[in-house]
Amino acid sequence: MQLITIDDIEAAAARTSASVVRTPLVPCLWADDDRPLWLKPEQLQPIGAFKIRGAANAVARIPEDVRSHGVVAYSSGNHAQAVAYTAKLYGVPATIVVTTNTPQVKIDATARHGAKVVVVPPADRESAAHEIVEKEGGTLVPPFDHPDVIAGQGTIGLEIAADLPDVEVVLVPVSGGGLIAGIATAIKAKAPNARVIGVEPELAGDTTDGFRHHHLPDWSTDDRARTIADGLRSTPSELTFAHITKLVDDMVTVSEDQIREAIGVLATRSQQVAEPSGAVTTAAYLHADLPKGRTVALVSGGNIDPALLAEILSGLQS
Amino acid sequence: MQLITIDDIEAAAARTSASVVRTPLVPCLWADDDRPLWLKPEQLQPIGAFKIRGAANAVARIPEDVRSHGVVAYSSGNHAQAVAYTAKLYGVPATIVVTTNTPQVKIDATARHGAKVVVVPPADRESAAHEIVEKEGGTLVPPFDHPDVIAGQGTIGLEIAADLPDVEVVLVPVSGGGLIAGIATAIKAKAPNARVIGVEPELAGDTTDGFRHHHLPDWSTDDRARTIADGLRSTPSELTFAHITKLVDDMVTVSEDQIREAIGVLATRSQQVAEPSGAVTTAAYLHADLPKGRTVALVSGGNIDPALLAEILSGLQS
Repeated sequence: MQLITIDDIEAAAARTSASVVRTPLVPCLWADDDRPLWLKPEQLQPIGAFKIRGAANAVARIPEDVRSHGVVAYSSGNHAQAVAYTAKLYGVPATIVVTTNTPQVKIDATARHGAKVVVVPPADRESAAHEIVEKEGGTLVPPFDHPDVIAGQGTIGLEIAADLPDVEVVLVPVSGGGLIAGIATAIKAKAPNARVIGVEPELAGDTTDGFRHHHLPDWSTDDRARTIADGLRSTPSELTFAHITKLVDDMVTVSEDQIREAIGVLATRSQQVAEPSGAVTTAAYLHADLPKGRTVALVSGGNIDPALLAEILSGLQS
Repeated sequence: MQLITIDDIEAAAARTSASVVRTPLVPCLWADDDRPLWLKPEQLQPIGAFKIRGAANAVARIPEDVRSHGVVAYSSGNHAQAVAYTAKLYGVPATIVVTTNTPQVKIDATARHGAKVVVVPPADRESAAHEIVEKEGGTLVPPFDHPDVIAGQGTIGLEIAADLPDVEVVLVPVSGGGLIAGIATAIKAKAPNARVIGVEPELAGDTTDGFRHHHLPDWSTDDRARTIADGLRSTPSELTFAHITKLVDDMVTVSEDQIREAIGVLATRSQQVAEPSGAVTTAAYLHADLPKGRTVALVSGGNIDPALLAEILSGLQS
């Protein structure tokens, strides 16, 4: 299988630089001395999550005469917003298929970008999107299973390596695997001594399971839907899993309670709003058995339900 | 009176680049079309606030043989952490004078950096700090009334002008005035068409009052202490007010309710944790009568009491 290359990622970086925020690495004073921690705050992207990187690269790569017929996407939320926002930048129509368990905050945000939103049950989202493309035209922008999307997400890895060339551990949330596929490609090219470690919720630990047993992850949609981390309920494709098998050093999982705790730590000690999916790497830093050394935890997004954040903060001792 | 220059700020930028985070400008998708808004998220600095910039520059400028005797600071909170953190970086002792109305979260954070913390009533903090210097030695690092501190804060203005050269409006919180003095110096040199506008809580609107009536602000400590924005309870010195008079285009005030609302908007729509003092510029964007055009709102810090943030988020309609 053809994997993406560092050249693809460098081209994506040039192509998307006007659409994405160049996020800094933020040092955490509360980290352990023997494994200093930096956060990569991708919730600062325009749509509140890293997904803008892959969407911007993929939409930019569609030939102009084809792009004018519009774009279609299916997503648990942040990819939907990313495609809707990018379509708006290019002045083309967008139709977004979301699932019935997508938080209302993400559906509303997608609609605000002017996209048409279609809500379907979780198991039907891919087929519904393909059906729209067939009936109404437009180009499907998949959330992770596409080289252009993977290359766009990989620009995060380029930035990490540029800002901290001697990074030793890079923690990345894993859902469909496009994010870690891109980042691992960039890190192995630019900071080859660093270990790239994927993080999942235990309740959606399909990729960790597949990684350990050397087979494509095979958990059901219902099983993966149990976690609070609504952005991490997808499962890798053959393309993203091939990158993971070749480039990722290890996979770890975290519990739902650890994710909640990490959301509180990020808000109160690092002044960052993370959604559950964005907090799994911090949860892993706090609780998983990880290598020592200079560590970067990717905070992938911040589109959390305000009521959930309030509940978590209320439970802390002030 | 001798004002600081753009050369002082550029020297400060070179001197402090290893100690501070180069924060990006973050576009806000929820802004009005005729006045696009970018946030400058200074809560991402290591201590959760911009104060690290001035402290790092001031401590770096103390001759090494003098610095070894330690540093002393008085502060409503964030400056305390900034000096304590910088002293730790240089391996010198720090004594910090805070006031009885300083949030516990800020006192704890200061102590965690290894500083000795002394708590006194608000009106006594300057005299207490001077007394410590007299009795125990060490160098006083003032929170705003010093050219090196002003130049350090001014590096924010350099970054804004570099990232958005055609910026038209820059909104800056005002307390002792060191922050806006530095930023206005940088903006007037590098983006001279931009208007620099100071923002205060109505309940601590001493500088707006002095600016309108052409006299040094003269509100009492008790009056200024009424606002929830605990970082904005200081009053300008002759030095900082001279900068404001010469370089600042206008001053506006916001209500306590508007500050609370802005904290909620920043958390839920821009994924940023702001303390009340850091949210006044967003409150002004939402409610004050401001010029149109490309606007930057400085989010100065994020050290908010978790219970207050939880209370504000709980009050929102999810």
